[in-house]
Amino acid sequence: MRVMVTGGAGFIGSHLIDRLVARGDSVVAFDNLSSGQLEFIQAHIDNGKVTHVQGDVTDFESVLSSMHGIDCVFHLAANPDIRLGTKITDTDLNQGTIATYNIVEAMRRCDVKRIAFASSSVVYGENAPLPTPENHGPCMPISLYGASKQAGEGLISSWVGTFGLQAWIFRFANIIGTRGTHGVIFDFIHKLKADPSRLEVLGNGLQEKSYMEVEDCVDGILHVMEQSNDPLNLYNLGSHDTASVRRIAEIVVEETQCKDASIEYTGGDRGWAGDIPKAMLGIDKMLSTGFDVRFNSEDAIRHTARALIQEIGFKQEMNK
Amino acid sequence: MRVMVTGGAGFIGSHLIDRLVARGDSVVAFDNLSSGQLEFIQAHIDNGKVTHVQGDVTDFESVLSSMHGIDCVFHLAANPDIRLGTKITDTDLNQGTIATYNIVEAMRRCDVKRIAFASSSVVYGENAPLPTPENHGPCMPISLYGASKQAGEGLISSWVGTFGLQAWIFRFANIIGTRGTHGVIFDFIHKLKADPSRLEVLGNGLQEKSYMEVEDCVDGILHVMEQSNDPLNLYNLGSHDTASVRRIAEIVVEETQCKDASIEYTGGDRGWAGDIPKAMLGIDKMLSTGFDVRFNSEDAIRHTARALIQEIGFKQEMNK
Repeated sequence: MRVMVTGGAGFIGSHLIDRLVARGDSVVAFDNLSSGQLEFIQAHIDNGKVTHVQGDVTDFESVLSSMHGIDCVFHLAANPDIRLGTKITDTDLNQGTIATYNIVEAMRRCDVKRIAFASSSVVYGENAPLPTPENHGPCMPISLYGASKQAGEGLISSWVGTFGLQAWIFRFANIIGTRGTHGVIFDFIHKLKADPSRLEVLGNGLQEKSYMEVEDCVDGILHVMEQSNDPLNLYNLGSHDTASVRRIAEIVVEETQCKDASIEYTGGDRGWAGDIPKAMLGIDKMLSTGFDVRFNSEDAIRHTARALIQEIGFKQEMNK
Repeated sequence: MRVMVTGGAGFIGSHLIDRLVARGDSVVAFDNLSSGQLEFIQAHIDNGKVTHVQGDVTDFESVLSSMHGIDCVFHLAANPDIRLGTKITDTDLNQGTIATYNIVEAMRRCDVKRIAFASSSVVYGENAPLPTPENHGPCMPISLYGASKQAGEGLISSWVGTFGLQAWIFRFANIIGTRGTHGVIFDFIHKLKADPSRLEVLGNGLQEKSYMEVEDCVDGILHVMEQSNDPLNLYNLGSHDTASVRRIAEIVVEETQCKDASIEYTGGDRGWAGDIPKAMLGIDKMLSTGFDVRFNSEDAIRHTARALIQEIGFKQEMNK
């Protein structure tokens, strides 16, 4: 099968490509390398299994010219920085909503029929019951990133209803793991690298969310796509529990061996305007397909912290 | 209060302005007159109660320059032709989603805090329980128009969560009445005017939806806004029952006195790709505010047919 992965050189995209290559797919990795890194997929490129297209999903012509002959699109590309929406308001509109329009419209024109889309738990907004099932409503996102994910879902479902697309929409928990380029663990390690004596935490640390390890995530995507075949398939992907930001800070301090670091909280019940203090996805539907995660939240966090400390080169820095 | 009504010279907008002027508001009617007509609000303009701005909601600078000093925005402007999305795919993206971004972003920059938004029952998609309550999920629209309304809702809710906007989102049933510029009754009358011997109906005529008279709709908007005061207020607006397209065709044939017209069905369970065969909004939340409609579906249809026959000048044509 010939597949396109948007954001293919990025955090989740590159892990997904590992699996797609392993199952024998031919892959177009569409990525502008704004946060992705070619080295994540370089081995596959060298082996001729993956072609990198240096393109931007906001550029319709570029998307269109790469779409010919594709059997299935995995649309993962997006602005990775949720907080950015509090300062710049058109990033998620352009890189989320309009980009997704470009993808499905290019698919329509090239008669490409299957899409998997990386949506997010943040579409549920706040005050949803926890754990939140797929049929929760109304979904009222409070971040601009969440609004763009919801808009992307709606575009895809309308292309399913109007033009006969088949789609898998995945609402992700917080995905963490190696090759991370953003997120709370990544941020904490960088902060401690800059100043091992203190770690500033946005909010009061009581924010509590569900974390999923990235290889669990991509395995879940492919498993669910094999097990479901409706015109539109909607699945939460997450783990069985949550962890607090306070606990993440403690684990990162432990793993970086910054034992004397003082953890300082900026206060307030959320990290920034549009942050959701508590989130946990209901995963019964995912489990019903026969898929389960290897890691729960805290294990995934420790596993990720150790890996990122290696990748970021924290210890080498400490030993200087 | 100084308010802006986008789509203010249009079908629902002009009726809303009648009420806003009656309660003493000063109104900016922002309308590009693509389907709206200045004559609908000319009397208010002449009286100095309404200012018309010939602007397009897709033009951010135009929206921004009209936003200063506004207390509340009623955002009704949108592509009125749901079927268009089956042929031209970027109309709803531009005139729906991006336009709504322009509105809320201009509000943010001008510190305008209150918005009422005309969403639609079509955000629920198909296969929703009937009557459909506001908390139905997941909302998976099947038309591009529905996708743009859902995207608009999400943008507004994210501005509420991130920038402190206060919003009222109304999911409308099929709104019908005088000054209609589109819709099934309007179409049927025009078809019979062109050929009184036959009436072609898209689909099998069994499509069944809830209809609400336009003055009921605008009264409902203003009543609910007085009775609710959350940061984000979401209400279905509709009537108590439904009517079939077949029944609408019979009523229009009766009211136009085209007694010999044969009603011909194109077949299929829906009028076009993306049409929802059966829709009925749950209105318990609306009723709980103390508001009720004057017309149910069939009465609203007959009332509208009579009024539009006058407006369109059907009888004069028949008598020639």
